[in-house]
Amino acid sequence: MLIAVDAMGGDHAPKAPCLAAINALKKRKDLEIALFGDENLLAPFLAKAKASIRKRIHVFNTTEVITANDSSSLAIRRKKDSSLVRAFYMVKSGEAQGLVSAGSTGAIAAGAVLLLGRIEGIDRPAMGIVLPLGAKQTLLMDVGASVRCKPVHLFQFAQMGSIYMSVLKNIKQPTVRFLANGEEATKGDETIGCARQMILDAGNLNYAGFAEGTDIVSGAADVIICDGLMGNAILKFGEGIGELLKKELKKEFTYHLLTKIGTLFLYPTLRRILRQFNWEKFGGLPILGVNGVVVKAHGRSSDKAIMNGILQAACLIEKDTISQIKSEIETTKRLLELNRKKAEEQPPC
Amino acid sequence: MLIAVDAMGGDHAPKAPCLAAINALKKRKDLEIALFGDENLLAPFLAKAKASIRKRIHVFNTTEVITANDSSSLAIRRKKDSSLVRAFYMVKSGEAQGLVSAGSTGAIAAGAVLLLGRIEGIDRPAMGIVLPLGAKQTLLMDVGASVRCKPVHLFQFAQMGSIYMSVLKNIKQPTVRFLANGEEATKGDETIGCARQMILDAGNLNYAGFAEGTDIVSGAADVIICDGLMGNAILKFGEGIGELLKKELKKEFTYHLLTKIGTLFLYPTLRRILRQFNWEKFGGLPILGVNGVVVKAHGRSSDKAIMNGILQAACLIEKDTISQIKSEIETTKRLLELNRKKAEEQPPC
Repeated sequence: MLIAVDAMGGDHAPKAPCLAAINALKKRKDLEIALFGDENLLAPFLAKAKASIRKRIHVFNTTEVITANDSSSLAIRRKKDSSLVRAFYMVKSGEAQGLVSAGSTGAIAAGAVLLLGRIEGIDRPAMGIVLPLGAKQTLLMDVGASVRCKPVHLFQFAQMGSIYMSVLKNIKQPTVRFLANGEEATKGDETIGCARQMILDAGNLNYAGFAEGTDIVSGAADVIICDGLMGNAILKFGEGIGELLKKELKKEFTYHLLTKIGTLFLYPTLRRILRQFNWEKFGGLPILGVNGVVVKAHGRSSDKAIMNGILQAACLIEKDTISQIKSEIETTKRLLELNRKKAEEQPPC
Repeated sequence: MLIAVDAMGGDHAPKAPCLAAINALKKRKDLEIALFGDENLLAPFLAKAKASIRKRIHVFNTTEVITANDSSSLAIRRKKDSSLVRAFYMVKSGEAQGLVSAGSTGAIAAGAVLLLGRIEGIDRPAMGIVLPLGAKQTLLMDVGASVRCKPVHLFQFAQMGSIYMSVLKNIKQPTVRFLANGEEATKGDETIGCARQMILDAGNLNYAGFAEGTDIVSGAADVIICDGLMGNAILKFGEGIGELLKKELKKEFTYHLLTKIGTLFLYPTLRRILRQFNWEKFGGLPILGVNGVVVKAHGRSSDKAIMNGILQAACLIEKDTISQIKSEIETTKRLLELNRKKAEEQPPC
């Protein structure tokens, strides 16, 4: 199994991606990694790896970098020798089976669509995250690949999300909801209202009504669908709360002797709770709807976060997730086509 | 000071609003409360109040109730004898100085607009919440009054938010940001992009660029503006995390002897941290942009939450917030008018 890794993406590149590659190779013996970046910058970090690991890393020198300030699709078209674009071409050629990057979400999503192409029946990519908060795991999607969405896009995300959770988590008929400002059918805006109608008309999903924000942590659904702007803000708000919590606990627990003693007793408990809010451990965020395994490593992208992204990609490759999504979308294609026509006849909303 | 309270709104009505009224009157001696609801249902809860408190509560019998399933503006127009509509009329007449309800946000916002009227220069109402998370207080707005917004609405929310924080929290030139999926100017969608341009053109606010979700807790701005769908989901997600945290800590800390001992030492610390996530204590959520003090009591609306809503309304009345917003909007009206014209010339986004 060969995974292409963008070594220049993320706040702590190229150090974090290099260390992530080394550690991922330690965890999975069946893995090789193609590392794309400035080889001179990469060399010092790779020098630390054992020879047995080092020979499973293949470095490809690139001269350009896509930054968060670049316009996503322009950058993908113009920066042909960027680490991200070169990595995508390796997946496109079939040489690598998946791609991991901690770079700009917009650029990764644009690259996935422009270079790998969309799955037939899917109009836009969606990035999901499986949140381990609360009673059960919930897939929140989209969290940043498609900023604002039309009803048909939200409808397609619901289809993909349902397949993803049934394949990856072995859930039969996952419950699916749209995120709104209340559970009643009168809530939400026109876009969500139309998407809801499409899902009811299609009738192939286990649709459970609108969700509200509390439902993301309450285990009220297996899949919660929203547009990328909303999902991204929620994801990062949760990340912020996790960081705040960690900081507060740390501050308090090192301050007083009494709390220090308390901490000794409580340490395993506190660690278990904090782990729930440690977004680095969540693994990567899959970008669904394109012809290939693409994983965005999350957050400020420490090497641990990127390593988890690589392991997540390996898992998606192993389970042949993309083929499963393709074949499932194929079977619901008739419904999708029907609904696409309906959406086109409806006023833009 | 007389405040009109909707005794039939919220999950725990009429018990919670009745107890809230009693407790609010205990806290503020200068306050009287007009309670709107089914007098037979209210009587048993009010019977518990001391005579000195009871005589400061004026009960107005109503026969209808607006529920979350009602279409907001239809319900306001048709249910003339509902507790909410009757309470609004008392504010409209000038007899009461403010209104508090824990009912449906949509109905309260619709009632505020239809019965009290919008402030000149403001096209839509916005509901804000001052979050005490992190380093400093941040006003997040809108959190549910106006579901999807045009650029001009977001621009107006920014104006109101800035005035609100400067009046209520004595902050000179509060920093204002729009919530997007990243800080770079290329982020966000067309709506946010247009709103950003309007704020730059107006030039009267301390605009600090786009915010991302983490900034809500990081203290990166005094005011963060978004549409009501996004804001509502974020608010409730945070609420859900707070509840989850409380539950987890409770579960863990009553399970083992060792953690029980630890809890004894840590109790004050844990309580302090949990308080930050206790949304009931945040006071009510003001609905800005209308001719009157209107406060939505938050969350599942325990009597504590509603009491804090009443006290929040009293504080807004005391500081003459609405007049201040009006006069400030008046001075920036020229800019607003200029921008409104610009927005109308632009393609719908």
